[in-house]
Amino acid sequence: MVGGGQLARMTHEAGIPLGIRFKLLSDTPQDSAAQVVSEVVIGDYRDLDTLRAFARGCDVITFDHEHVPTEHLRALEADGIPVRPGPDALVHAQDKGAMRAGLDAIGVPCPRHRIVADPADVERFAAEGEGFPVVLKTVRGGYDGKGVWVVRSSKEAAEPFLAGVPVLAEEKVPFVRELAANVVRSPHGQAVAYPVVESIQVNGVCDTVIAPAPGLSDELSTHAQQLALRIADELGVVGHLAVELFEVRDADGVPAVLVNELAMRPHNSGHWTQDGAITSQFANHVRAVLDLPLGDPRPRAPWTVMANVLGGDYPDMYAAYLHCMARDPQLKIHMYGKDVKPGRKVGHVNTYGDDLADVRERAAHAAGYLRGTITE
Amino acid sequence: MVGGGQLARMTHEAGIPLGIRFKLLSDTPQDSAAQVVSEVVIGDYRDLDTLRAFARGCDVITFDHEHVPTEHLRALEADGIPVRPGPDALVHAQDKGAMRAGLDAIGVPCPRHRIVADPADVERFAAEGEGFPVVLKTVRGGYDGKGVWVVRSSKEAAEPFLAGVPVLAEEKVPFVRELAANVVRSPHGQAVAYPVVESIQVNGVCDTVIAPAPGLSDELSTHAQQLALRIADELGVVGHLAVELFEVRDADGVPAVLVNELAMRPHNSGHWTQDGAITSQFANHVRAVLDLPLGDPRPRAPWTVMANVLGGDYPDMYAAYLHCMARDPQLKIHMYGKDVKPGRKVGHVNTYGDDLADVRERAAHAAGYLRGTITE
Repeated sequence: MVGGGQLARMTHEAGIPLGIRFKLLSDTPQDSAAQVVSEVVIGDYRDLDTLRAFARGCDVITFDHEHVPTEHLRALEADGIPVRPGPDALVHAQDKGAMRAGLDAIGVPCPRHRIVADPADVERFAAEGEGFPVVLKTVRGGYDGKGVWVVRSSKEAAEPFLAGVPVLAEEKVPFVRELAANVVRSPHGQAVAYPVVESIQVNGVCDTVIAPAPGLSDELSTHAQQLALRIADELGVVGHLAVELFEVRDADGVPAVLVNELAMRPHNSGHWTQDGAITSQFANHVRAVLDLPLGDPRPRAPWTVMANVLGGDYPDMYAAYLHCMARDPQLKIHMYGKDVKPGRKVGHVNTYGDDLADVRERAAHAAGYLRGTITE
Repeated sequence: MVGGGQLARMTHEAGIPLGIRFKLLSDTPQDSAAQVVSEVVIGDYRDLDTLRAFARGCDVITFDHEHVPTEHLRALEADGIPVRPGPDALVHAQDKGAMRAGLDAIGVPCPRHRIVADPADVERFAAEGEGFPVVLKTVRGGYDGKGVWVVRSSKEAAEPFLAGVPVLAEEKVPFVRELAANVVRSPHGQAVAYPVVESIQVNGVCDTVIAPAPGLSDELSTHAQQLALRIADELGVVGHLAVELFEVRDADGVPAVLVNELAMRPHNSGHWTQDGAITSQFANHVRAVLDLPLGDPRPRAPWTVMANVLGGDYPDMYAAYLHCMARDPQLKIHMYGKDVKPGRKVGHVNTYGDDLADVRERAAHAAGYLRGTITE
């Protein structure tokens, strides 16, 4: 696996029961996954020679993030190393322009969008539709709200163009809430769909995920799952695909979804599956990448809630374990071994049960207590 | 953790979500746990200097097996390293003579037993009670049926005395079945009890574990849990304690239990908890060793069955994954990364659900198919 973040850490954890050997390419020995994996190569994934040396002897390569240059992935494939997901699929998660073009080509509903050339062009884009505000995104390099701007005039639109990367303009969708449809697809074409979840963002960062999305109709849930399965199939995704969705109301007030983003790896909106589903997203990602039959994605409890733990003002989160664990013996803590920095994702908690209000309260309390924003 | 076997492998897996650093002392880099842990020291746990060097910088030491010499554990404690479970407790799992003496001292019912000096003394032991057969055990060094003999006369009783280790004689208990009561206790005295399970042995090796034990009365189940909690408390156990029990009928035909063996570490009879309990034995062992509040030990499904996967005649178990995973998408496979040798424990499977017959069939099928004794 290329990339030493928490997704690699948790993928390794899920791979241990399969008896497989897991090799990691990590930036530093202190990275989240490098702390827990036996076979770690320290190196820069942007360097092709490093990637090639790492890949030698691997049966298959997969990723903790989308940042490996597409041309490097093609080079690995030319060397005969299976790359899953492959570069032709992964480009849709690497490049927001390619994502929109790919989704347009297969008729998937998206926010109105086009590549814009400069601030004056942003003005034209706004005039073509609903006007300002307009969402601007650099097509590469963004995550967790980085690389995204919401501008109310062309005067505010200068910054996105400074990086020299193409800029995508999108309408600011008046969404009701955000959903995510997570699916896993294997090379032989088997696919499974997890229940559609609600994802609650705070300051552009995922805060809470509720599985399944409360009050979502069976019809829209099935539609969203089918949409995600179709995207996985049409784009040739192998492994976990997260389809981030806006739930909107159409002209007749009927609930519908638009695709916001794609991620082709285990995803924050699927962390609930570690404790809430029969087979976790990490286990199914490993199984897909190895072309093994996929595991049952169904939930094990009526409700599961995931709450992200962000770094707070005090560095020792482990001191909070005593209170959190004693307060809730059913709490599932997942920490990433990262140094605490304010606002940084350093872990998450999962709770599950029959009563959604209780399950939400327990997750929110634990995440808040670990962060330090709740002190009792 | 001292010892690189599968228990260390699965303890590391359970420790990853807690964000802790896990350091391993392993005999070889190929050992089950050494394959998946970042920080591995290769060395001999029988060598005090090796143990001391390993322990330096550890917050606490725990064990994959009971074979570390008691005097070495005392030396580590004298160095100021917390050893959990401590030597005074662990000796009862290391030495069957000490175990019986310890259990006698706190009034725990055991099979009739005493240390015997030679074959003639075995004859006397038999005559003191029910006659032959008699069970002979070397007080140290046995596991999985090794170090245990069932003899029908003093003529058959020579071999156990050859090792020069004290020999314990026990009545051969006419048990109805074998049970196990698993509990976890922390240094501050909190303890949790898992449901009592039935353990089915084949050729002296655990084959299947059913949780909870079918048909066990609430009364006897609670009695067995209380017995295990009392043993943990009286012996000062820290971490996971497995109390292997014989279910017998007393003189009035009333069900009762006798203690067969103790293990002070995660135990085969608790592997079902990985997928069948809210908190696994491995997670609770880690929490206990770190003196953290313990997790909820209750089951997540009406029935969970664990079946051990033994090495069979063909070395590549992974070829069987395709069929097993496709046949049962809910199957939980736990392989240890070990080379296959006939009869060697190389993994286990867990299944769970509402229908015990179905859950048992699925576990037995998968374990048999992986071993190669079932081919369809």
